[in-house]
Amino acid sequence: MVPFKKIVICGVGLIGGSLALALRKNGYKGRIVGLERNREILSRAYALGIVDDAGSPMDETFRGADLLVLSVPVAQTGNVLKMVMPYLSAEMVVTDTGSTKTDVIAVAREVLAEKIDRFVPAHPIAGREMNGPDAAVDDLFTGKKTVITALSENRKDDIEKIAGLWEQCGSIIHYLSPDDHDNVFATVSHMPHLLAYGLVDYVANHAKSDLFFQYAASGFRDFTRIASSSPEMWRDITLANRAHLLTEMDAYLEELKNMRDLVEKADGPELEKIYANARRARMNWLNTIENSESKK
Amino acid sequence: MVPFKKIVICGVGLIGGSLALALRKNGYKGRIVGLERNREILSRAYALGIVDDAGSPMDETFRGADLLVLSVPVAQTGNVLKMVMPYLSAEMVVTDTGSTKTDVIAVAREVLAEKIDRFVPAHPIAGREMNGPDAAVDDLFTGKKTVITALSENRKDDIEKIAGLWEQCGSIIHYLSPDDHDNVFATVSHMPHLLAYGLVDYVANHAKSDLFFQYAASGFRDFTRIASSSPEMWRDITLANRAHLLTEMDAYLEELKNMRDLVEKADGPELEKIYANARRARMNWLNTIENSESKK
Repeated sequence: MVPFKKIVICGVGLIGGSLALALRKNGYKGRIVGLERNREILSRAYALGIVDDAGSPMDETFRGADLLVLSVPVAQTGNVLKMVMPYLSAEMVVTDTGSTKTDVIAVAREVLAEKIDRFVPAHPIAGREMNGPDAAVDDLFTGKKTVITALSENRKDDIEKIAGLWEQCGSIIHYLSPDDHDNVFATVSHMPHLLAYGLVDYVANHAKSDLFFQYAASGFRDFTRIASSSPEMWRDITLANRAHLLTEMDAYLEELKNMRDLVEKADGPELEKIYANARRARMNWLNTIENSESKK
Repeated sequence: MVPFKKIVICGVGLIGGSLALALRKNGYKGRIVGLERNREILSRAYALGIVDDAGSPMDETFRGADLLVLSVPVAQTGNVLKMVMPYLSAEMVVTDTGSTKTDVIAVAREVLAEKIDRFVPAHPIAGREMNGPDAAVDDLFTGKKTVITALSENRKDDIEKIAGLWEQCGSIIHYLSPDDHDNVFATVSHMPHLLAYGLVDYVANHAKSDLFFQYAASGFRDFTRIASSSPEMWRDITLANRAHLLTEMDAYLEELKNMRDLVEKADGPELEKIYANARRARMNWLNTIENSESKK
C-alpha cells in the first residue's frame, strides 16, 4: 500500500506521468494532483487521465497533500523548491526523480534549510527517448531499479515511505551514496548520451552527410537511440554531473586514443583482445543482470 | 527468378546461411552447396537445412556450379580465392558479402588476375550481433539495401545477375564506388562498433566495474548492442578499412574533445545546440529513411 493520501507531482512528463499511471494501475486510491509551468502540458496530462486535478491555485493544490514529487529537469530543482516552500506542511515528504543527485541535494539543502530532513532523494532507473505526458506508460518502472540516496537527516520512516511508493510501481529499491550514484550514471548513462549526440552531430555536419545517413542501418539506429532524448534535460544532466563526467570522459578518450593508435599500427591481436573482452563482459552482464531483471 | 542453377556458398554463418534460407523461401529451386573450413559449422548448416550438400570433395562441390558467394571474414578472401581458383569454370560468377570493398577488390585482383572480370563485389547491409548458422534467418535482407561496387571489368550481364540474386531475397540494390562505400561504412558502422567495444572494455576494466554494470540499463544496452558482434570479424573489418576509419575517428575525436571542453566550461547553450542538432538530424533520418525502409 502506498503510504500517502494525496500526491502532488510537479512535472507530469514521461517520468512524473508514468509514476501517476503506475500508482493507479497498482491500486493507489488517493488523489494525484499535477503541477506544471506549462499549462498545455498540464491540460494534456489531465485529458490523458494522468492527474485528477490540474491548474488549481497553489494553496488548493497542496491542501492535505502528504507527498511532493519533483519530476522536472534537475536544473529547475531550486526554483521549484523556492516556489513551493510556503506550501510545505509539517507532515509532507518531498522526493525527486532526478538523474543526478549531488547537485540536487546541494540546492535542496540551500532552499529547504532546516526542512532538509523531509527531502528523500530518489532516481528511478527507467526511461524512453520520448518525453511529455503522451510518452507516459503505466509499466515504465516494472522490474526496474529505483536508487534512493538517503540523507543522514532523513527520518527512517520517510525513507521507507518513498521505498514503498516505488515498490508499489513494481520497482526494486537500491541504496547508494549520492557520489557513487553520480559516478555510476556518469559512466553507464550520461557519457553514452554525450557520445551518441556527438556522433549524430558529427555525421549531420559532415560534407557527405546525405550519403552517410542514406546507408546508416540498425547498428547506427541502436547506438544513437539515446540521441533522440530531450536536449534540454540532457544539457542539465551534463552540467549537473560535470565533475564525474569529465573524469570518465578523459579516461574513455584515453582508451579511444589507444585504440586509434592500434588501428594505425594495424595491431590486429590487440584490437581483437579488446573486442573479445568487451563481448565477454557484455554477455556476462546480459546474462547475470540485464536479462534476469527484464524477466521480473 | 534467380539466374543460377547451382550456388556454392563459402561460409555458411549468419550472412551466407541467411542468403541460402532467403533464396529457398523466395522460390529458388537450384542447388545450394556449402563450403567451410570448420566441419562442425558445415554439419550444423546441413542439419538446419541451409545447404543441400556439405563436405563433398572440392571438384564435386564445384561441378556444374555457376555462382560462388564468398561470405567469410574479409581477411580470408585471398586464401579462399587461392583455394578455389582451380575449380572456377569459365561461366562461373563470383561475388562476396564483405563489409569492406577496397581491400577485398585489391586481393581479388591479385589472386584472380585475368579472371577479375567475373568478380562482382557486393555488400548486403544487414546483420545481427549473433553469428554462425544458428543465427541465420530467411528474412534478414528483406527491405534492406545491398550495395554493389561493380568493377570496370565486370560484364553488365554478371552485374545484373548479382543484382537479381539479392532482389530475389527482398533486398534493394544500390551502386557505390568502392571508396565511397568504405568511407560511408567507416562512419556509420565501423566506427560505432569500435566505440561500443571501447566503452564496454572501459567499463569492464574499471575499478568500479561491478558497481557500474549493476546499474547499466536500457540506454547502455542499446548503445553497446554491437559490442556483442564477432571480435574476429570486426578485427578484420577494422584493419581492412583502416584508412577511412582513422580519418573519421580523428575527426570524431576532435568533436568529442570539443564537447569535453564545453562540459568543463559548463557551456550549457553550446552543448544544448549540439544535442538539439543531433536530435533533429536523427529524427529526420528516422522519418525519411530508416522507418520508411523498415516498412517495406
